[in-house]
Amino acid sequence: MEQNTVKTWAECAPRLIAVAAGRAPADLVIRKGQWVNVHSREVLPDHDIAIAEGRIACVVPDAGYCIGPQTQVVEANGRYMIPGLCDAHMHIESGMLTPAEFARAIIPHGTTSIFTDPHEIANVLGLDGVRYMHDEALMQPINVFTQMPSCAPSAPGLETTGHEISPEDVAEAMTWPGIIGLGEMMNFPGVAAADPKMLAEIAATQAAGKTVGGHYASPDLGPDFAAYVAGGPADDHEGTCEADAIARVRQGMRSMMRLGSAWYDVESQITAVTEKGLDPRNFILCTDDSHSGTLVHDGHMNRVVRHAISCGCDPLVALQMATINTATHFGLERELGSLTPGRRADVILTSDLESLPVEQVFARGRPVAENGECLVDCPHFDWPDSARGTVHLGHELSATDFEIAAPEGANTARANVIGVIENQAPTKALQADLPVREGLVEGTGEVCQIALVERHRGTGGAVNGFVSGFGYTGEMAMASTVAHDSHHMIVVGTDRAQMALAANRLAEVGGGVTVFRDGAELALVELPIAGLMSDAPAHEVAEKAGRMMQAMRDCGCTLNNAYMQHSLLALVVIPELRISDLGLVDVRKFEKIDLLEPQS
Amino acid sequence: MEQNTVKTWAECAPRLIAVAAGRAPADLVIRKGQWVNVHSREVLPDHDIAIAEGRIACVVPDAGYCIGPQTQVVEANGRYMIPGLCDAHMHIESGMLTPAEFARAIIPHGTTSIFTDPHEIANVLGLDGVRYMHDEALMQPINVFTQMPSCAPSAPGLETTGHEISPEDVAEAMTWPGIIGLGEMMNFPGVAAADPKMLAEIAATQAAGKTVGGHYASPDLGPDFAAYVAGGPADDHEGTCEADAIARVRQGMRSMMRLGSAWYDVESQITAVTEKGLDPRNFILCTDDSHSGTLVHDGHMNRVVRHAISCGCDPLVALQMATINTATHFGLERELGSLTPGRRADVILTSDLESLPVEQVFARGRPVAENGECLVDCPHFDWPDSARGTVHLGHELSATDFEIAAPEGANTARANVIGVIENQAPTKALQADLPVREGLVEGTGEVCQIALVERHRGTGGAVNGFVSGFGYTGEMAMASTVAHDSHHMIVVGTDRAQMALAANRLAEVGGGVTVFRDGAELALVELPIAGLMSDAPAHEVAEKAGRMMQAMRDCGCTLNNAYMQHSLLALVVIPELRISDLGLVDVRKFEKIDLLEPQS
Repeated sequence: MEQNTVKTWAECAPRLIAVAAGRAPADLVIRKGQWVNVHSREVLPDHDIAIAEGRIACVVPDAGYCIGPQTQVVEANGRYMIPGLCDAHMHIESGMLTPAEFARAIIPHGTTSIFTDPHEIANVLGLDGVRYMHDEALMQPINVFTQMPSCAPSAPGLETTGHEISPEDVAEAMTWPGIIGLGEMMNFPGVAAADPKMLAEIAATQAAGKTVGGHYASPDLGPDFAAYVAGGPADDHEGTCEADAIARVRQGMRSMMRLGSAWYDVESQITAVTEKGLDPRNFILCTDDSHSGTLVHDGHMNRVVRHAISCGCDPLVALQMATINTATHFGLERELGSLTPGRRADVILTSDLESLPVEQVFARGRPVAENGECLVDCPHFDWPDSARGTVHLGHELSATDFEIAAPEGANTARANVIGVIENQAPTKALQADLPVREGLVEGTGEVCQIALVERHRGTGGAVNGFVSGFGYTGEMAMASTVAHDSHHMIVVGTDRAQMALAANRLAEVGGGVTVFRDGAELALVELPIAGLMSDAPAHEVAEKAGRMMQAMRDCGCTLNNAYMQHSLLALVVIPELRISDLGLVDVRKFEKIDLLEPQS
Repeated sequence: MEQNTVKTWAECAPRLIAVAAGRAPADLVIRKGQWVNVHSREVLPDHDIAIAEGRIACVVPDAGYCIGPQTQVVEANGRYMIPGLCDAHMHIESGMLTPAEFARAIIPHGTTSIFTDPHEIANVLGLDGVRYMHDEALMQPINVFTQMPSCAPSAPGLETTGHEISPEDVAEAMTWPGIIGLGEMMNFPGVAAADPKMLAEIAATQAAGKTVGGHYASPDLGPDFAAYVAGGPADDHEGTCEADAIARVRQGMRSMMRLGSAWYDVESQITAVTEKGLDPRNFILCTDDSHSGTLVHDGHMNRVVRHAISCGCDPLVALQMATINTATHFGLERELGSLTPGRRADVILTSDLESLPVEQVFARGRPVAENGECLVDCPHFDWPDSARGTVHLGHELSATDFEIAAPEGANTARANVIGVIENQAPTKALQADLPVREGLVEGTGEVCQIALVERHRGTGGAVNGFVSGFGYTGEMAMASTVAHDSHHMIVVGTDRAQMALAANRLAEVGGGVTVFRDGAELALVELPIAGLMSDAPAHEVAEKAGRMMQAMRDCGCTLNNAYMQHSLLALVVIPELRISDLGLVDVRKFEKIDLLEPQS
């Protein structure tokens, strides 16, 4: 692995000092911009930034004295100079892109630092997978910090992941150069119950002096919340209303407010600052999950900052929430997040602080994007075969693998059915009386079949069940190896033969998402890396994902976030009913239940 | 050494969680106070704090559920609960007290965390001395963090210290448990010149992930300042005007504003926040130097916070500047500086946020002071003989050691005279034509003699010169082993016999300050530890220091800060004229000059 090395401040200090003192020329000087100072929260017109060795040497009214014959000079012409934007918590895998291609997609939007939790690949490939992501991260021309995943599996005992993460893994990862902290501690009941494994992971992170990410996905702000906070998580991005944000900040956590492709938690929380007047320093913006289509069409952190401003937040405060607040949170305030001496020279030039057009981007002192075009190489890691061939079905599947046997002699059967709810992550635990034909229970009407196909160990296992709410018609199937959080394969279909075709197709291409109808493939998104990511460019992946979602609609699906709903059906930590490789799971009780109710 | 051990958050987490969840009783609950929340910058009435293992378990509207039969309950009765105060930069030695006695003096004032740079003892005893201070610091019931001194000697080549500090010393100290960063980098010309030794000290500190303290004592905010900032110091407390404070914050440093016994830099700088409206998060309050009299009669950080409020600062903002801002600066925001879960339970109860009466103080969950009385033991380190016997004169001094020979046959001599300036640290380089009697140049009128007596290596050396401005009359002498920064012995007197008596007396008692007149000792402050500190209680030292200053007045001295002026006369980094063991130093040119001008 070739790291895209960042020299330390100390290594650069002699040169930075010489440039600032006027004894040596800078590598780059940006002239005559408006210095957006996120420390003092001011805009200071007519300033120059002198850069050397990828770091800022000085910011002064006139850096003419730092210009030598070899110095590159960029004219800001009165535009605003703002620090490169930071995404404080996110999952690269959500974009279906490798770190390299994700970086290439966000650089033109001015994001120069991301704090990514490779939680999805951890479930598939364990610590090795995290290391691959971490290593590709360090090859990038921008700052990609890795949060060590904390919860794989997310629901121990209710699912089998490809690999698990242990406290020992966490302790080891804390020694890696790109690890910035612990990824979101999702097992909040475990922390509140003082689960020794969860506390050991937190302890290892604290011992390394790093930041413990939180995830408290409950509206209960009573003793359970107090207990979670006492366990040590330092931030939380699961708040959804003003009271959530306020409670977190008062308790000494940082409130991360997210605008993702399907998360809209900024508007409802930022009033804590804009209306209630809380000190904004403990509020941070992030995306959590961005789909490739969002990156291609809408933006990244620039979209979030713009949105915060449109919600009434002062532009300078909003920028602080995406720069210095984030840097301070992760102990990096001397390294990035502001345009001041010694910091990495990550700079955006923009003509307007509210609409925030990202006109030029510099990362570590190099021009990396201009007017939406990425100007730099984002190197690819040489992913090993073990990361590329992760769909192990054990045998070629056929329609019979998806048969659901009815009780002996029954004409109908009462089944527990996963009910998808429009625009919500939770599902409904439904029951339906389904017909029996030739000894098999059949879906009918809104109810179609779902299968969780084991793909990590090649057990050949398929857990079958029923789901309603997609609205599929005709003979079709949709399969995906993105299947949070264990990432087996979820196949949903109206026809068992199509289900087999779809599943086998994903085995053939090494993972991804496919839609079949009448024996033909309508759309395919290949995700060859861990069955989660493509190493193709974002616009290609976005286009394929768009065709895939169109194919779902062509099959009769009317849901707004149909693909996301599909991929969350195995997420056995969100109520009410889910499917895992171990069976149907009632997440209200955290226990497995039978698919078919006993006959009365 | 017995450390006053602080269990880590991780070690306490199971218990803290259990208390917060209501499964275990707290050790202490403070009931029904107004929660001063320095994260959100709010006052929240009717809150309880539950404490266990010395840390805060939860802060909730009603912690009744955390109270068991053994739980101590303290009624706040609607008083404000504020975090223990932090002194972000200070020198314990300035109080003439050991760390233990200093702690005992400040605990009743509500200071529970200090960041101390034992720069003075480093000049006398080197790394060993720093380690002794560090070790006594860790024995205290409050948080005494040590900043590793960076500049001993402060003026290499112009003075000889007892010991020197090397970059290797700094690197070693960074591994000690109580070291929080590098002490003020006073050699600002060295940093701006990229002096490899200074940069190596900064690099060692940065490599350890710790905070580099700054000291930029110049009004020049041009390229020299830019070069200093580019070198890496993260804060500065030498600013004296609003422009200084603003410049530091804009450049990404934290502006530490001091109110010491003789420093008054808050009022002139805090307008950056109160009038110019800069984001206050990067402003911090500190004392730098507090004399024992100030501690006994006026207070400590409570005095500084009160003063900031009286300068127009919002009380909550002023409190942030003495709590969370400091904690964040030193990477301790998860450890102290706010009343939130997991943090050390350092709490003050006060009835009024502006006048700030410190009624009760808790440190690490224990009551440590009430109504001005310290309730806890502050253990003394067992100082070795090497630290107690540091006044080595080589031989008993006599009047002849202070004779200044005139040029052969001269009747008068033109001498360079150190001119003390009322209320200022800089001196004036004066010249005076002095009479010659029996071949010796004699002081006359305002001009009396000064001698720098070598006391570290017992060389028997005494450098003689002249000083004016004290106003001494009669036959007297004053001697002090507090003699910044090299801390030899400074003797000032109108009579050589008295000078010898005073010097020999300090050798006899192992250091301190004494005043002699007409062969009798008028006052003595014994400072047996390194010739700098007493291990007697603050009120005793303050009383003796008071008598000493009265004795100076009795000898005719009219200066406001006469003792401080005396002790700074060897500080060869502040212009214009000083004395060192190597001779008279012109600090305008950083070179030694002759005492007597050549005869014309």
